[in-house]
Amino acid sequence: MSDTPTIDQPSPPSAPRRGARSLQKGQHTRAVILDAALGLASHMGLEGLSIGALADVTKMSKSGVFAHFGSREELQIAVVTEYHAKFEEEVFFPAIREPRGLPRLRGLYERWVRRVSVEIDSGCIYISGAVEFDDRPGPVRDALVSMVKAWHAALRKAIVLAKDIGHLAPDTDVEQILFELHGLILSLHHDARFMRIPGAIGRAGVGFDRVIHSVITPAGQHIDAETKKKLATTAPKKRT
Amino acid sequence: MSDTPTIDQPSPPSAPRRGARSLQKGQHTRAVILDAALGLASHMGLEGLSIGALADVTKMSKSGVFAHFGSREELQIAVVTEYHAKFEEEVFFPAIREPRGLPRLRGLYERWVRRVSVEIDSGCIYISGAVEFDDRPGPVRDALVSMVKAWHAALRKAIVLAKDIGHLAPDTDVEQILFELHGLILSLHHDARFMRIPGAIGRAGVGFDRVIHSVITPAGQHIDAETKKKLATTAPKKRT
Repeated sequence: MSDTPTIDQPSPPSAPRRGARSLQKGQHTRAVILDAALGLASHMGLEGLSIGALADVTKMSKSGVFAHFGSREELQIAVVTEYHAKFEEEVFFPAIREPRGLPRLRGLYERWVRRVSVEIDSGCIYISGAVEFDDRPGPVRDALVSMVKAWHAALRKAIVLAKDIGHLAPDTDVEQILFELHGLILSLHHDARFMRIPGAIGRAGVGFDRVIHSVITPAGQHIDAETKKKLATTAPKKRT
Repeated sequence: MSDTPTIDQPSPPSAPRRGARSLQKGQHTRAVILDAALGLASHMGLEGLSIGALADVTKMSKSGVFAHFGSREELQIAVVTEYHAKFEEEVFFPAIREPRGLPRLRGLYERWVRRVSVEIDSGCIYISGAVEFDDRPGPVRDALVSMVKAWHAALRKAIVLAKDIGHLAPDTDVEQILFELHGLILSLHHDARFMRIPGAIGRAGVGFDRVIHSVITPAGQHIDAETKKKLATTAPKKRT
């Protein structure tokens, strides 16, 4: 760490400058490899990742790739972490800026649907990873589980807030709602990606309404109608 | 075919007798290999299957396994077909003996839940296969898709009948119900097998009620209450 220039400690001009530049270059190369790895893992699954395949795709030597990721497992975990960061950026952070209650819950869900529908051609690493690693204990499985847990926690919190704020009935079973909403997303991924059935995105939307409307309050109905109107004007055109 | 003894054409005593016995032995060996292959595929996925791994498990030579399944692909397809036959036997055939309408639909769903919950320790080949082969065109993917299509068709028919018979509202969106019920099963598999969250089987049941009760008629409510009572007394104890 002491070799790394920081904002607080400006470094002397010559040698460390080169160090900074090569550090930057190293970070750039790492990002290029990671990006290729994400693409590969989306199509082939995390188990389809290998140092060799990545060397092919990035036109680097195996030892070049190896210098950045010391093992296949380290690479798989880096991909899971990177995927999670992108997921947070696209789904979580924009949605938590919505007002708490149903607007935020719907915001999280609709962005989740949008994300999965963009991934229909590539595949979702969470969903494929869950199946690949359900039976393989180890650090990759642990990383995947902790990412999905973090996402579940964010959804759970949004449902609890919607209940506390009076948009959902006080006796709403939070875990049940979470279970059903996740099921709709899994069904969307299955039908659109594996079965190539058209209309799955629309069905994921109708499903959300059915789940929520079984526990919605009059105040919630009012706010949800407003939210739907707002989202309809701002959301990008949907594909199936 | 002409060498094979049949019931209509009794064969002369000596040589063909041995033929019959060796045919029987061959079928038995094939069944033993297939059974081991099913176990292996449930844990490791269809992609985890190999002639070599099977030779290990069955304590046979590779060429011995190869004599029964000419290629890995042929083996994978045989596993999918065998899995489907078992699924039909456990889920489909007992359920279609239930009276048409909601009793049959609930019968199909509850047996499906039971099947997946038994598979929590091993995994469902349909669900893992869908993820493994969503991006890999070829005969294994085709076999998987056609099996899932057959199962979807059976469920669709049960929903249509429940609507025709007046247990579900005339404007019930059949594809939507199918989409949501399948989602509940996928969520059950995900939560119980990958996340090891307790209570998923119960949630799959509550989810069915929510989906169905949003489209149920008074006649349907009456018959469904009867069905639940009957199933509660005959179903085996549930695990989570």
